[in-house]
Amino acid sequence: MHAIWNKYPEIQSELYVVREIMEENARCKDKVIEASIKDLIQSGGKMIRPGFAVIASKFGDYKPERTRAMATVVEMFHMATLVHDDVIDDSKLRRGKETIQSKYGKEYAVYIGDYLFCICFKILASTASLQSIQIDSKAMSKICLGEVEQLNSRFQKEVSVKNYLKRISGKTAELFALSLYIGAAESDCDKKLSRLFWNIGHNIGMAFQIIDDLLDYTGTDKQLGKEAGHDLRDGIYTLPLIYALESKPADLIALLEKEELSEEDIQKIIELTHEYGGIDKARALAKKYTNKAYSFMKRLPDNKYKIMLQEITGELLDRVY
Amino acid sequence: MHAIWNKYPEIQSELYVVREIMEENARCKDKVIEASIKDLIQSGGKMIRPGFAVIASKFGDYKPERTRAMATVVEMFHMATLVHDDVIDDSKLRRGKETIQSKYGKEYAVYIGDYLFCICFKILASTASLQSIQIDSKAMSKICLGEVEQLNSRFQKEVSVKNYLKRISGKTAELFALSLYIGAAESDCDKKLSRLFWNIGHNIGMAFQIIDDLLDYTGTDKQLGKEAGHDLRDGIYTLPLIYALESKPADLIALLEKEELSEEDIQKIIELTHEYGGIDKARALAKKYTNKAYSFMKRLPDNKYKIMLQEITGELLDRVY
Repeated sequence: MHAIWNKYPEIQSELYVVREIMEENARCKDKVIEASIKDLIQSGGKMIRPGFAVIASKFGDYKPERTRAMATVVEMFHMATLVHDDVIDDSKLRRGKETIQSKYGKEYAVYIGDYLFCICFKILASTASLQSIQIDSKAMSKICLGEVEQLNSRFQKEVSVKNYLKRISGKTAELFALSLYIGAAESDCDKKLSRLFWNIGHNIGMAFQIIDDLLDYTGTDKQLGKEAGHDLRDGIYTLPLIYALESKPADLIALLEKEELSEEDIQKIIELTHEYGGIDKARALAKKYTNKAYSFMKRLPDNKYKIMLQEITGELLDRVY
Repeated sequence: MHAIWNKYPEIQSELYVVREIMEENARCKDKVIEASIKDLIQSGGKMIRPGFAVIASKFGDYKPERTRAMATVVEMFHMATLVHDDVIDDSKLRRGKETIQSKYGKEYAVYIGDYLFCICFKILASTASLQSIQIDSKAMSKICLGEVEQLNSRFQKEVSVKNYLKRISGKTAELFALSLYIGAAESDCDKKLSRLFWNIGHNIGMAFQIIDDLLDYTGTDKQLGKEAGHDLRDGIYTLPLIYALESKPADLIALLEKEELSEEDIQKIIELTHEYGGIDKARALAKKYTNKAYSFMKRLPDNKYKIMLQEITGELLDRVY
């Protein structure tokens, strides 16, 4: 389990149960399938999304079984999208471990991702309220749409900031929003409080993704667990570059128009992005979303979970300020 | 619309509405996405699964809106699996038209498939009963599992008949069963009748897939819309070959052990599969499932929809007898 949860044993122990539920749901006669999903679960990330679902649920009439199921769903859905992302990116490593598609082949990864999607809905259908299933399935299709949109905007030098924000809103912020929302809603928090959680999650997610994209321009390879400039190579133009391109600088545009980018080109693009103020502007926007998230959080009823949420948000988002 | 429905204008008109609902659900701001999904819908197959859902619904308290939604879900789910199948098979053509992955790239096809899955659940969540959503999501995860299992058993010369049947039960029969079942259940047919529809669908689906696999050994390219021996090349060993291998014929085994199969090898394998009785035995088993489907159908209450179902089943399954 990621160290971020060490300070909060109450949540941490729930996340261990969530992991067990995930493993139970991965159980099947085909041992290769079972092993590959268990691999995924054990290589686990920070478990931020299920952690958020659990924390939000504590603001209402906490029902352990229901909350755990919801937490499992958001994490498994996240896992499914990661498996398919790795197919697309042709990634060899994820969280320092060999990816499913590198180990078992792309075909396998496509179907395992599908299977994980279906497991999510299976858990959801057997636990959640009809209303939550509706909200969940809507959010999930928005997330997939965000992925397609990102793909469609590759290598486009005319992506607007608005377009970028819409894309990350679907791709990332939606699942953060859903995680907090579903935890609250399934604990019978009233509509207003559940909505507030949605807004908190949305803003955390927006800041989170902008910061992640920033690190592609500022982070060292070691910090990232992947190479810097990775998105650039794939033709995914994120906020720093989009800002840098606003003044239509000829040198930067010329570089992006090259058929193939050398290592040197990538470094030069990163330098120019800094120079044209792309990094600073992106960092400022991330800060804006972070502040918005904090100001929404202030409206939460006072209790220890509110403080917890504020602290974890800090851990998550203060990486670049 | 496929000619199979010309004889049944009542069902055909419903299927046109289903197609419209599919197009409505494909609507989105990104016009590339919308166009690619519409392409898929218009290249449409026989619409057997949604047709089955509609027919079964006529045995109960027919609710047009609900039935159409269920019919849409089974067809869109089918479409989603086809899109991902084409990624796996690297298919250039599907139903005589260029596939999504050939036209827009594999990455795109992976995400579009995911998006279609999510749309299914969205429609389901907004229309169906909680119980139907549960049954649906269970069936869907079983279908995905069937796909993974097929992948895992590639190039295995020791696949048992039992293993093959389990695989096609998940991959194909489950969705046929679900289509008839969900139509009946959502029209408030009683449990016994809905269950009967499940059994009918399962047996039709089993026969359907065995026949499809048979055609890979007996059909001409023109008949198939794809090359014969296609599965063989991909290392997917289906029933005719599995039966032929039962007597462990050295010549056939030797051919399958070759690193790469030439066109001649494929033809030889097909010949030997005939020779060792694989085709006849597979045909006999398909017949058995067909008969089972008919005998279950006999138990349905007498009405024009029963006759319709019998006739369409005949059209569908009498291709090889």
